[in-house]
Amino acid sequence: MPELRKDPITGRWVIISTDRARRPSDFSRESAVVKGTGFCPFCPGNENRTPPEILAYRPAENGHEGPEWKVRVIPNKFPALGIEGDLDRQAEGMFDKMNGIGAHEVIIETPNHMETLSTMPVKRVEDVLWAFRERILDLKQDRRFRYIMVFKNHGEAAGATLEHPHSQLIALPIVPKQVTEEMDGAKSYFASKERCVYCDLIRQEMDSRVRIAGQNQDFIALAPYAPRFPFETWLLPKRHESAFENSPSHLYENLARILKSLLTRVVHVLDNPAYNLVLHTSSIQDNSNDYYHWHMELMPRLTRTAGFEWGTGIYINPTPPEEAARYLREAVIEEAQPVNA
Amino acid sequence: MPELRKDPITGRWVIISTDRARRPSDFSRESAVVKGTGFCPFCPGNENRTPPEILAYRPAENGHEGPEWKVRVIPNKFPALGIEGDLDRQAEGMFDKMNGIGAHEVIIETPNHMETLSTMPVKRVEDVLWAFRERILDLKQDRRFRYIMVFKNHGEAAGATLEHPHSQLIALPIVPKQVTEEMDGAKSYFASKERCVYCDLIRQEMDSRVRIAGQNQDFIALAPYAPRFPFETWLLPKRHESAFENSPSHLYENLARILKSLLTRVVHVLDNPAYNLVLHTSSIQDNSNDYYHWHMELMPRLTRTAGFEWGTGIYINPTPPEEAARYLREAVIEEAQPVNA
Repeated sequence: MPELRKDPITGRWVIISTDRARRPSDFSRESAVVKGTGFCPFCPGNENRTPPEILAYRPAENGHEGPEWKVRVIPNKFPALGIEGDLDRQAEGMFDKMNGIGAHEVIIETPNHMETLSTMPVKRVEDVLWAFRERILDLKQDRRFRYIMVFKNHGEAAGATLEHPHSQLIALPIVPKQVTEEMDGAKSYFASKERCVYCDLIRQEMDSRVRIAGQNQDFIALAPYAPRFPFETWLLPKRHESAFENSPSHLYENLARILKSLLTRVVHVLDNPAYNLVLHTSSIQDNSNDYYHWHMELMPRLTRTAGFEWGTGIYINPTPPEEAARYLREAVIEEAQPVNA
Repeated sequence: MPELRKDPITGRWVIISTDRARRPSDFSRESAVVKGTGFCPFCPGNENRTPPEILAYRPAENGHEGPEWKVRVIPNKFPALGIEGDLDRQAEGMFDKMNGIGAHEVIIETPNHMETLSTMPVKRVEDVLWAFRERILDLKQDRRFRYIMVFKNHGEAAGATLEHPHSQLIALPIVPKQVTEEMDGAKSYFASKERCVYCDLIRQEMDSRVRIAGQNQDFIALAPYAPRFPFETWLLPKRHESAFENSPSHLYENLARILKSLLTRVVHVLDNPAYNLVLHTSSIQDNSNDYYHWHMELMPRLTRTAGFEWGTGIYINPTPPEEAARYLREAVIEEAQPVNA
């Protein structure tokens, strides 16, 4: 008998197939193979082929704009939104529109085309996280923006168009629907219990242990109770933090550790799948609060979304999260972080 | 400058690229090629290889269960939900779950493996729609169910696993989130204006004409103002009807006509794309109302959904609906229905 499970934050139902659960080898997926052929605008030496640099981390002895960088942030050459101008909110009969104002940036995670977040040293993964933070803190000062979304598409099946390891950031003049749903759900839970729903969830998961994929001192990697996708995994700080960019600085090192460890496990268990990684944090205007808990969501792309999901918003997930977490937790990987689950 | 547009029903924002709009030939897509090789459980003569038939339309002179059928409805052999049992709602700590009870049926649209809804005679498309109606009316009597979703996945990129033309029906013990959002949006519009939002929308679109893809006496095919996907098209009855299955019987013939015409245009303009087609109708418990207007949504699968869309719920659509509608409206097709747009 399949199970219908409800996500405690958004109220979203999912269908979990418990009878014929799909194991990692049951998915016919495209591996995210890096070919490394052809011209790459993100590789060192081609800095003049990208729009002007916004931020870069370089060893102290090196000058500006040179090829000796570790992380480099540039405007997206084909931005989804334009940075110049006013919102100019308008009606068109019964419809509403505004100019597509926003920032769209690319965080080039490494100079090395063939590296990934799972193979880079922890210290350099941490540099990428600091770049996220620094860009968010800067863009928050632009009063046109309401939300800043950081995400990563890894592999063609996840929507990546360039191979070179990179994340993206989009600053938006609206709070997106998915974010509003999460924040509203967390707010209404807080209203009735005066506790953060994510804090409660972490406590329950640490007691039951069945959905823990990994953890360290500051973070926990969880298969959520009602995941939309097989092997969907959330990374949450154990102590309450409402906004990623305001977290105490020691958190970034342990986030880098658990992120690298999780991605290494996912690559190992699922044969280098394409994936999306999305940072969920509080909206700019409601940045410091007791009810919302920032986190990252990792979604390996193993299944196709079809008519039923588009029509209902209910996802059919063929792998129970308890099994997904067990595969990830028990994976034997090199340089594994200790797993205390 | 891209445009941010808001859907008037759900409040969902989308980003429409207006500068470098993508034309039909700009999409690298997998055509939905039918190979017709190998064993097919849905082809005539293999009736005994499917679960027992629920419904079939046969010429009057033919008996039951034989190969001489036009449309055939069977239980899905690998159902997402199980038909037997009770919901047994339970808590699991802070989480909520219930048994995955529901009906999951397959509507085999034609005995001919190589046909499609766009190449079948109008009369036989109408038969398929009558089968939808008949199954919905039957399943509504089961008091465990709250919503019945009919949808079609055409082509592998749209999630189809079998080639033989078929639609699916899932009866659910919950009203899905996407449906609740639409119904709530329509309800709140009605609360402030005492008019159906879809009726208003149809009136405005018939005045402006720029987003009409086709129409006949009873139906209009529209590119919605804020579409998530390039060439997304909605089919709506021109007069208010809250539930598909309660519509007056003459509507089914004209729905068959406009559906066939629209699909023929889509196949022509977009080179036989994979697509999802979803019936949006009122929930079982609120079946006859003044605020919700049933319709079908057609979504050709031309782009990939990536991290930004998963994280925000905001879709980036590279083809303005005005251009998509024009391509579909102006397509020169054989046996085209007259277009009065």
